Amino acid sequence: MEKNYLLKIEYDGSEFSGWQRQPEKRTVQGTLEDVLSKVMGGEVTLNGTSRTDAGVHALGQCASFKGDYGIPTEKIVTVANNILLGNKPGQKLGDLRILSVDEKPLDFHARFDSKGKMYRYIIHNSGEPKVFRRNYVYEVPDLLDVSKMVEAKEYIVGTHDFKCFESSGANERDTTVRTVYKLDINKVDEDVIIEISGDGFLYNMVRNIVGTLVEIGLGKRDKEEIKNAIEKKDRSLAGHKAPASGLYLVEVYY
Amino acid sequence: MEKNYLLKIEYDGSEFSGWQRQPEKRTVQGTLEDVLSKVMGGEVTLNGTSRTDAGVHALGQCASFKGDYGIPTEKIVTVANNILLGNKPGQKLGDLRILSVDEKPLDFHARFDSKGKMYRYIIHNSGEPKVFRRNYVYEVPDLLDVSKMVEAKEYIVGTHDFKCFESSGANERDTTVRTVYKLDINKVDEDVIIEISGDGFLYNMVRNIVGTLVEIGLGKRDKEEIKNAIEKKDRSLAGHKAPASGLYLVEVYY
Repeated sequence: MEKNYLLKIEYDGSEFSGWQRQPEKRTVQGTLEDVLSKVMGGEVTLNGTSRTDAGVHALGQCASFKGDYGIPTEKIVTVANNILLGNKPGQKLGDLRILSVDEKPLDFHARFDSKGKMYRYIIHNSGEPKVFRRNYVYEVPDLLDVSKMVEAKEYIVGTHDFKCFESSGANERDTTVRTVYKLDINKVDEDVIIEISGDGFLYNMVRNIVGTLVEIGLGKRDKEEIKNAIEKKDRSLAGHKAPASGLYLVEVYY
Repeated sequence: MEKNYLLKIEYDGSEFSGWQRQPEKRTVQGTLEDVLSKVMGGEVTLNGTSRTDAGVHALGQCASFKGDYGIPTEKIVTVANNILLGNKPGQKLGDLRILSVDEKPLDFHARFDSKGKMYRYIIHNSGEPKVFRRNYVYEVPDLLDVSKMVEAKEYIVGTHDFKCFESSGANERDTTVRTVYKLDINKVDEDVIIEISGDGFLYNMVRNIVGTLVEIGLGKRDKEEIKNAIEKKDRSLAGHKAPASGLYLVEVYY
């Protein structure tokens, strides 16, 4: 009997060329499809919720696939993770792990049925770079004025045409209007942690928003420039793209 | 005027083939010698305190080098670290950083003058592997009885012939007798943290001690077996070698 499976996945993006399968490259989708095809005993094609870029991490990426396979659903996680981990004592862990598998109605699709997503972005901001965190944060050496970054929220939260925060090279989309539900910016010890949720995000939108917020926090840019960039829909009026290393896809809402 | 410099160094060992320079491989010594030769304006040959293996980390590795160079000592750290970091905005940090440089008497040698070292070993022990820590801990899924591991200390701390904890392939050494000053084993949240200091360590000695302690913590081995292995000087009577990923050279004593 055909079933529709929804996976929740965690990965360290440092050593992946992003989510999307590409020939000759190690990608999350490619790695997972290969492992799941073995586990399920038949070809698996995944629909991922978010096409994360190279170096971007995920604590709760989602992906669905359909098929008629023999294996009981409750065994998939254990068997797939054992392959992903190598499962030998003393061996290094894998950088990709399935957290859960659930059965969904046959018309369910991980991307099209998503109601939104939450991303976290971590900036390390102490002046002393941490070699052990180089793949997991954006290292900003000069002290950020977090209160200024927080003030800039008023121009971002809500429904806007966010074209100015979209990098070139985006996939086709009907509109560049998106709704940002919430934007939290907090200093936690040496880190500035930015959490942003919305109904959908344009290509590199979170990283471009973060880069702009960093320039505001450094006093290089006024918050009003965000308003102007959004109105003019002009990428060149917004700030730089923050690096992939600080970005985590935390949750997909259904 | 010839000077003798002592460096203190931090590195993430994940992407290095260990400390010692080897042809065609990326090693800590090789990388540092290349950068320092540029910075100093003349060839630099380093004497490292500890020849850490591939994957082993350092928070306070030490190394010395001698020469007659033009650059003021206080500029070395900044200039070398800028080369090591790339020093471009948004770029990933390097995995190697010089913490300090001090001038020493001309007859000083980083290895021969060391009075001892302290290593830390981190075991993650929650049953839930953490993909983001795979290069930085030893993942032991089954719960360790830390109190049993602590009891085993009595056979390790002190002056012993530690030949049973030496891996094959060691460099030449006069004796396999070493003194372990202190051995601390603590459960901290989901981690078991082992700190061991001594006047010197044989090849893989810390990792072989940790592997043996893990087997004691899992109930696979009695603490008395350590006593027997030490007396018999027999590697095969001690436990497995714990992986490199959990090991940190924390401090060198002078």
